[in-house]
Amino acid sequence: MGRRLVVVGGDAGGMAAATSARRHDPDLDIVALERGRWTSYSACGIPYLVGGEVKRLDDLVIRTPKDLRDSYGIDVRMRCEAMAIDLDTGKLEVRNHELSRTFTLGFDLVHLGTGARPLRPPLPGIDLPFVGGVQTLDDAGQLLRHLTSPPPWAPDGIERVVVVGAGYIGLEMAEAFVRRGASVTVLTDRSEVMPSLDPDMGAHVTKVMRGLGITVHCGTKVTGFEPGSVRAGGTSFPADLVVLGLGVAPNAELAEEAGLTLGAAGAIRVDRRQRTSNEIAWAAGDCCASRHLVSGREVYVALGTVTNKQARVAGANLGGGYATFAGVLGTAVTKVCDLEIGRTGLTEVEAADAGFSAVAATIESTTTAGYLKEAAGTIHVKVVAERGTGRLLGAQIVGRGPGAAKRIDVVATALTAGMSCGEVAELDLGYAPPFSPVWDPVAIAARKAASLATG
Amino acid sequence: MGRRLVVVGGDAGGMAAATSARRHDPDLDIVALERGRWTSYSACGIPYLVGGEVKRLDDLVIRTPKDLRDSYGIDVRMRCEAMAIDLDTGKLEVRNHELSRTFTLGFDLVHLGTGARPLRPPLPGIDLPFVGGVQTLDDAGQLLRHLTSPPPWAPDGIERVVVVGAGYIGLEMAEAFVRRGASVTVLTDRSEVMPSLDPDMGAHVTKVMRGLGITVHCGTKVTGFEPGSVRAGGTSFPADLVVLGLGVAPNAELAEEAGLTLGAAGAIRVDRRQRTSNEIAWAAGDCCASRHLVSGREVYVALGTVTNKQARVAGANLGGGYATFAGVLGTAVTKVCDLEIGRTGLTEVEAADAGFSAVAATIESTTTAGYLKEAAGTIHVKVVAERGTGRLLGAQIVGRGPGAAKRIDVVATALTAGMSCGEVAELDLGYAPPFSPVWDPVAIAARKAASLATG
Repeated sequence: MGRRLVVVGGDAGGMAAATSARRHDPDLDIVALERGRWTSYSACGIPYLVGGEVKRLDDLVIRTPKDLRDSYGIDVRMRCEAMAIDLDTGKLEVRNHELSRTFTLGFDLVHLGTGARPLRPPLPGIDLPFVGGVQTLDDAGQLLRHLTSPPPWAPDGIERVVVVGAGYIGLEMAEAFVRRGASVTVLTDRSEVMPSLDPDMGAHVTKVMRGLGITVHCGTKVTGFEPGSVRAGGTSFPADLVVLGLGVAPNAELAEEAGLTLGAAGAIRVDRRQRTSNEIAWAAGDCCASRHLVSGREVYVALGTVTNKQARVAGANLGGGYATFAGVLGTAVTKVCDLEIGRTGLTEVEAADAGFSAVAATIESTTTAGYLKEAAGTIHVKVVAERGTGRLLGAQIVGRGPGAAKRIDVVATALTAGMSCGEVAELDLGYAPPFSPVWDPVAIAARKAASLATG
Repeated sequence: MGRRLVVVGGDAGGMAAATSARRHDPDLDIVALERGRWTSYSACGIPYLVGGEVKRLDDLVIRTPKDLRDSYGIDVRMRCEAMAIDLDTGKLEVRNHELSRTFTLGFDLVHLGTGARPLRPPLPGIDLPFVGGVQTLDDAGQLLRHLTSPPPWAPDGIERVVVVGAGYIGLEMAEAFVRRGASVTVLTDRSEVMPSLDPDMGAHVTKVMRGLGITVHCGTKVTGFEPGSVRAGGTSFPADLVVLGLGVAPNAELAEEAGLTLGAAGAIRVDRRQRTSNEIAWAAGDCCASRHLVSGREVYVALGTVTNKQARVAGANLGGGYATFAGVLGTAVTKVCDLEIGRTGLTEVEAADAGFSAVAATIESTTTAGYLKEAAGTIHVKVVAERGTGRLLGAQIVGRGPGAAKRIDVVATALTAGMSCGEVAELDLGYAPPFSPVWDPVAIAARKAASLATG
């Protein structure tokens, strides 16, 4: 028997590392602990399950415990939670919730993929059952049960949904319930929805959401919950169901108690190989911090793509290979009904925070040639550039029509390459009338930013 | 009065240069000659006009002669054709077709935006009126007239259309007539449709087109036309209307007769500022050659994006500024019904021609998360890499679903930056279930190519 790797966490941050380690080392003894009932699932798919586009909870499971055992030789222990890690002796204390007993597991290497948990501020009534989260498949199951067994104050079914928070999850859940025909209210204490955008870009989203029939209250602080209603901004909003989308916090307590160094947002600090401050302990995903490719700062970005990349890197290293994680740009796309949103790199606000003297150019264009009037959607692109050099720092997109949000990938690629806005403006991008105006909106915005930055 | 610039050609290659020159030099005396009846139109939009998505011919006109006169102070002379240029004396011989008279025009600078013409091989019957081209708005007008006044052998209207050639125009015109409810046959002498793709990728397009109900005959050489039919491959195809999509040749005769050096495909050779071999003569667009950013070779790429970029550069230089054209990647996107196609850089065949030892990786994935079964489309991505170094050389995409073809822009950006396939595989690209699997198909293909190239 080879050395033993214990992986803590059965979702992507853990299991993608475990399978990657297996590909690198067929002899590694890999034990994986999952405290819940599911492995390797797409939490990002939950809004589409609730919205009815995904039919069954199981469809979101990418690899079952059986797959992981049979195809990867990983000893997956379900309902088993790591309670404490002793890195000096190489021992884990594990609680088997199924059998209600605790046991000790020795290891040579340990990998933490403990993920994150939704923020639940200590407000009166937040633990009422009609206030749901969107983090695990169990959360998803609970939301689905609410739909089929509505609370007593909604005998005819879930008709009024209040979404608290207006980030990715908030918007996607708003769409999900719009699809289900519910009346949706979104509450946020920010000045606009989508706090990962600059407020001027968020304002476009707020406006379109209202146009879609979603009630949006910005600058409205939630103060508590009562059965059937949400108190916020001095008034009361009727709610058959409440969905919390207030962001997440890393599950880093186990690491901290084991003596590992934490970093940004209290997440586990790792080096570029995904190793923690202890050489036998590694980590990946929503429990750990990352380096931002533009600011150079340590940041906390909890996104599925980042998790998968980090876990693959950690696994390669755990399996005796060599791999590094390049860092993050915070690239993200989302949509609410037909409105698409993308962002990458630094916003204007973030650029200033990071010490850049930045300029920003915003343009309005269309996603197709303007004369294809039925297909053409309006697209707003904001490009942030360093004053003087014209260096590209980031971009934000809000728009409708073909490929609106995924245009952000051009900016992500250019940021990785360290391009200037002038270079982005001249890129040989694909054009045909159903896909773009002859000058792609990203190129138009980059040209304007280049001119502002250096002109 | 400032110096005089004469611009030959009223479409993008000419007019985008003229307007760019005007922005740089308010005093320049700019005269523009257009032999036809239209200025600054989108020839790329013709298939969508024929297909009915664009309602009026005028919708494709971006700037009318009046706009150009009133907003840019350009003296536009319609129906005026440059017959000869004397660069030693700075004089142009111009034929006014409207008045049937010839006059002489002096100039300090001349800019050629003479464009290209569709290839019309000298086959029997090719000049019959039912054999149409797709190059100018007059061609478009003629196609529309055929639809309303069909030929005598099609008294009930245009029901059977034969498209000769299966490149961008061929496919787009096939879609246009499918939209109109016609029965469409595409004939090509190549082994697959889309000769700008490698044959293995073209085969995916051929297959899908057949699935869409389009009759496709590959390896079938057209030998002639008779009223109501096309002769090809030893048989006869009934045709109420024939559309030629056999590619284009540069209109470079005027330049050649003026003593300017020609280059690739007989197109006008220009330097990176778009200057010809004579310092007072400049050129842009489909009449001139370009430098390929990957192969370093002089190539002939006739695309609207390239034209607009080159013309802007030429105009800046003509107006006393300084600008250079970066070069081309041959990035192009198109679609036929719901199938999208993209390509950039070198194909496997082109890479070998250019002297690269290349490997190619092809993958099949989906455009959304696989569990969004209704939205997910199959996408094939082929990435070409240099053996040993893993340098990215090009990519091709054939697929359905959100943002399939425009994903090629990530590759175009990475090619411009000189990235390796391994770097592309690690890019922080946007992910959410309606937009992409967690690993974008482009990243998956790049990873496989990196592994093949360096593994």
